Amino acid sequence: MKIAIVAPSCSLKREAADLVTAIVAARGDCELEIHPQCFLSDGHFAGPDKARLAALREVMADPSVDAVWFARGGYGSNRIAEAAARDLPNPAHRKLYLGYSDAGFLLAAFHKAGLEVAHGPMPQDVLRDGGEAAVERALDYIVHRSDSALETGLDGPAMAFNLTVLSNLLGTAIEPDLTGRDLLIEEVSEQYYRIDRVMFHLTGNPAIRAIRRLRLGRVSDVIENEPEFSVSEEAIVSDWCERSGIEFAGRADIGHDVCNKVVPFAPSDP
Amino acid sequence: MKIAIVAPSCSLKREAADLVTAIVAARGDCELEIHPQCFLSDGHFAGPDKARLAALREVMADPSVDAVWFARGGYGSNRIAEAAARDLPNPAHRKLYLGYSDAGFLLAAFHKAGLEVAHGPMPQDVLRDGGEAAVERALDYIVHRSDSALETGLDGPAMAFNLTVLSNLLGTAIEPDLTGRDLLIEEVSEQYYRIDRVMFHLTGNPAIRAIRRLRLGRVSDVIENEPEFSVSEEAIVSDWCERSGIEFAGRADIGHDVCNKVVPFAPSDP
Repeated sequence: MKIAIVAPSCSLKREAADLVTAIVAARGDCELEIHPQCFLSDGHFAGPDKARLAALREVMADPSVDAVWFARGGYGSNRIAEAAARDLPNPAHRKLYLGYSDAGFLLAAFHKAGLEVAHGPMPQDVLRDGGEAAVERALDYIVHRSDSALETGLDGPAMAFNLTVLSNLLGTAIEPDLTGRDLLIEEVSEQYYRIDRVMFHLTGNPAIRAIRRLRLGRVSDVIENEPEFSVSEEAIVSDWCERSGIEFAGRADIGHDVCNKVVPFAPSDP
Repeated sequence: MKIAIVAPSCSLKREAADLVTAIVAARGDCELEIHPQCFLSDGHFAGPDKARLAALREVMADPSVDAVWFARGGYGSNRIAEAAARDLPNPAHRKLYLGYSDAGFLLAAFHKAGLEVAHGPMPQDVLRDGGEAAVERALDYIVHRSDSALETGLDGPAMAFNLTVLSNLLGTAIEPDLTGRDLLIEEVSEQYYRIDRVMFHLTGNPAIRAIRRLRLGRVSDVIENEPEFSVSEEAIVSDWCERSGIEFAGRADIGHDVCNKVVPFAPSDP
């Protein structure tokens, strides 16, 4: 089982790469290939669009690679997602793709293209306090598809996204088809008024109203705002669900933290 | 000519109300009615949704009111925009509605409902350094439809929006129909990576690709970000236009500042 790491948005920290390499060596159940593109730097990004796309396409096309693990979030995978999912070579179909946060743009595009994708921890999460657990969980899923890695409330087809990422996918060529699925959302580093506004956007879209139900993951590192937004995250989300006829089904065990569980995207109906 | 001021998002500052009242008194060409709702406060908002909606509907239905002037931006008009544009009383059709920023949600909903709307300065702009000029310009347009108040590059049907507001309108019931129009956008208090992401969202939507051309207003108070986004605002916007086959037609004289010019939304084809 060979796992390739590429960085479609921002650069992977060397320290994170070293820690994940050590974890994989200790496990002995898989092999890691950290693409040198992970350490490129071009302004905000881990190299120019062309370099990030080329590295991603290279590991997608490599028949010896069993899983592609997105190095981290940040920003930028949307700039190459549509191109990355176009004219797929055969080996791209025989792999798992794992990530979350900004990598949600790729999860959406790749799932739409028929690839196997899952929302879950990424290599750079190892730098969080207790981050080894997140990395071990991701590896348990990648290598063994372990049930213990999964979000525990899954009882039907589901998808998980960062809220702002999903908002920016709506109406584009890589908008995910959420019809009949559970939608799990999570958010980080936003003000509550922005979360309220994005929930307006999401729940105002017919494509989102077609979901089976919505569950709210963690909303972390909320940015304070003047004037204060005196409504809780759960009240914001459940209120917009009620306004738009969407069933709100409580909390989900995902988020920008070490407890972030894996949510596989069930294949689309053929 | 009677102008009513209501606050569909955040509260109007008393100081701004006083200054605008003095300007109107000195002009002597119109009469001002500042609705008491402008000074309500409920957490983030100028009163609860119900109070903001009731005040707005009240002035819309008032046959003695010739123009409704939105007090200021902030956040919250999206929460009442769809309801405000529903089952319109006749007097609502014989008025002009003016505002920008968060008020763009109302401009979109009201234009879609066949009302006369324009993107331009608001009462609270009087508190900016040199803000009297912005208020005088707005009044020149409201009272006399003065050409001197208009954005100078207008040569066909146009609409203007805050970039993030427009992004959050896409796919909703109040999404504006921009087909064949010039689209003028402006932004404030965002990081460049967010502007890049929203441009991905906008230009990925077929509804935006149907515009005649796009012009970029001012992008002010950009929030710094780590890692730095080393591309200019004009390069970001023109790049996404090029990627998506939209004509980029240069800069526009709108923004969150005292030079913000008026952009009337031409009526939709019947």
